Amino acid sequence: MRTRIAERLGCDVPIFAFSHCRDVVVAVTKAGGFGVLGAATFGPEQLEAELRWIDDHIEGRPYGVDVIIPTKYDAKAEAETGRTDLHDLIPPEHKAFMKRILDEAGVPELPEDERERVHREIMEGRGAMTPEGARKLVRTALAHPQVKLVVSALGAPPPDIVAELKQRDVMLGALCGKPAHAVRQKEAGVELIIAQGTEAGGHTGDISTLVLVPQVIDAVNNEIPVLAAGGIARGSQVAAALALGAEGVWCGTIWLGTQESELNTFEKEAIFRARTEDAVRRRARTGKPVRMLKSKLSEAWEEPGAPSYLLPPLQGILYNEAHARVVRAQRGDLFSFPAGQVVGAMAGETTVKDVMYQMQLEYLEAMERLVALQPKE
Amino acid sequence: MRTRIAERLGCDVPIFAFSHCRDVVVAVTKAGGFGVLGAATFGPEQLEAELRWIDDHIEGRPYGVDVIIPTKYDAKAEAETGRTDLHDLIPPEHKAFMKRILDEAGVPELPEDERERVHREIMEGRGAMTPEGARKLVRTALAHPQVKLVVSALGAPPPDIVAELKQRDVMLGALCGKPAHAVRQKEAGVELIIAQGTEAGGHTGDISTLVLVPQVIDAVNNEIPVLAAGGIARGSQVAAALALGAEGVWCGTIWLGTQESELNTFEKEAIFRARTEDAVRRRARTGKPVRMLKSKLSEAWEEPGAPSYLLPPLQGILYNEAHARVVRAQRGDLFSFPAGQVVGAMAGETTVKDVMYQMQLEYLEAMERLVALQPKE
Repeated sequence: MRTRIAERLGCDVPIFAFSHCRDVVVAVTKAGGFGVLGAATFGPEQLEAELRWIDDHIEGRPYGVDVIIPTKYDAKAEAETGRTDLHDLIPPEHKAFMKRILDEAGVPELPEDERERVHREIMEGRGAMTPEGARKLVRTALAHPQVKLVVSALGAPPPDIVAELKQRDVMLGALCGKPAHAVRQKEAGVELIIAQGTEAGGHTGDISTLVLVPQVIDAVNNEIPVLAAGGIARGSQVAAALALGAEGVWCGTIWLGTQESELNTFEKEAIFRARTEDAVRRRARTGKPVRMLKSKLSEAWEEPGAPSYLLPPLQGILYNEAHARVVRAQRGDLFSFPAGQVVGAMAGETTVKDVMYQMQLEYLEAMERLVALQPKE
Repeated sequence: MRTRIAERLGCDVPIFAFSHCRDVVVAVTKAGGFGVLGAATFGPEQLEAELRWIDDHIEGRPYGVDVIIPTKYDAKAEAETGRTDLHDLIPPEHKAFMKRILDEAGVPELPEDERERVHREIMEGRGAMTPEGARKLVRTALAHPQVKLVVSALGAPPPDIVAELKQRDVMLGALCGKPAHAVRQKEAGVELIIAQGTEAGGHTGDISTLVLVPQVIDAVNNEIPVLAAGGIARGSQVAAALALGAEGVWCGTIWLGTQESELNTFEKEAIFRARTEDAVRRRARTGKPVRMLKSKLSEAWEEPGAPSYLLPPLQGILYNEAHARVVRAQRGDLFSFPAGQVVGAMAGETTVKDVMYQMQLEYLEAMERLVALQPKE
């Protein structure tokens, strides 16, 4: 399944792995795929450290970086970023609501030192999620010559970033959930579209991958490559994506269950326990719809009388602090983590190598099945 | 793409067409596919007339009938069916709400004679939607020897129906939206599972076709054939479905735009105008989630203060009377018709023959593309 995009980027198979975990990025890339580090929650210093580690382990192979350049953003939060503690911009009503959910469920507060550490990490990451913060991340990535792809998770980036990537011959990708987005992204200079269906984990739209991919390919006149994202975790789904005309697949959820993943045992067990129908789209995590495991925490925000959602980054700051409390208390009933609908088919820990092998094996089986249906010459 | 199910049922290609329109059923079957008449809105007498017409035109080929055997049903409505006018069981608040939407939008009332005709047709159809009504429909279908497949749209039918079909050697199919449904259906004697993704028109669940199909195949241990439904209207999507392991595809929305379709020009134009994101899941039409074109009518029922939805068949009776008013007034802004997400790619009138030809042509192109990616021997 060596497609044009695999040739262009220099990987063996067009299996793109989105992960916040450097170990996954390295392991996928070394297994012949293309790892993409989700950098949105890092500050520039941490990203620099992660990329240096990847450079040291990836044996000269190419990889990618994914940044979030938000289009909808709380303007006051942006203006104040770096000057004030963004946490202070969260309305007291929202803080009280989140606190009440956790207090009533008997989830202990974080110890002071851990609270401060979590708070600092979130602030570094969220500060990077402003347009200016994203620029810094892109520049950090560009200093690493093995970074051959930069992906913008929320639409086309501003022209200065596009120009800088072009100059350095780094490919620019963007995620899209509607054909109209793809048209705008192509016009803005995006060279690789990741058509992400509603079944994906994380920020998603309404349109399913099966419907979206052919529409996006048509929308860009098949002039730039399109990857399929959402609902892809096994070989038959890879074959389906290529049948739709995608040049490769973009997978995220499946890596969460690997040994290499950043999740701890409690978090992995919640993932393995989850059914497909538990991965729902909710706004509690960032203020925009994110497909994630539903829990008492996510559902409380859907109840009548709950406060309205905040804009990014404030909802995310509020949510992530609560999430840290939930994870520390190992409370599965309140654990909401971004995951796609493929989560229902993940039953136990694997390795990146296993996943890559099984995917390609099942892909070949699917191809055999398809070829057997062809009329004999 | 002649799969086992195509061989078993005696069609050339495993493209199953669900339609309420006998002309579509005949045209698809004559073009090598397998037409399935959606009989849920017919009374037994009308179904008998439709099937007789199909028998007269289908040139001895096999076809199918789809019935709705409801699992959730307003018990009072069922007890009263045939004895009282079901319309009288609809609470006055609900009637007043629906009337107010249309009155305020300036939609004229139906003339008295047309109101009576619509009312009579709905009652005949809805009466058939009780468990007992569905039995009558199945018996009507079984009197037609070219009916080789009976499909139950809402889960496994009761054991007496299963036994009767088996005795007559008519295949029994059922639609499912979750792997667990498929397991129960197989245990109940269902021989063909139609795994229907959330992107489908009509009653749907949450899980996308790309995720659902492999899960359902695994759930039934690949022991009975599975068709993919939802998001399939073109050849690349057919190829994707077969790549997933489906033995064929089940399409509904695409036929609405054909010359043969039962829709009038006003209705077809609304279909061609609709974008993918206009096909949303709402409960206004039957009381259960149905993917349909959104309109002021469907959205009014989602507003705070709207009455709660009625159980089948009462919500459907209320909705269908309003719908007849909307269609007569040709009010596109209030027109909500069941349609899947593929609706966004339908831009103008076609014929059944065209659709069948294009689907197979694009399927072959997709196969060529896939085969070209295979390593050379």
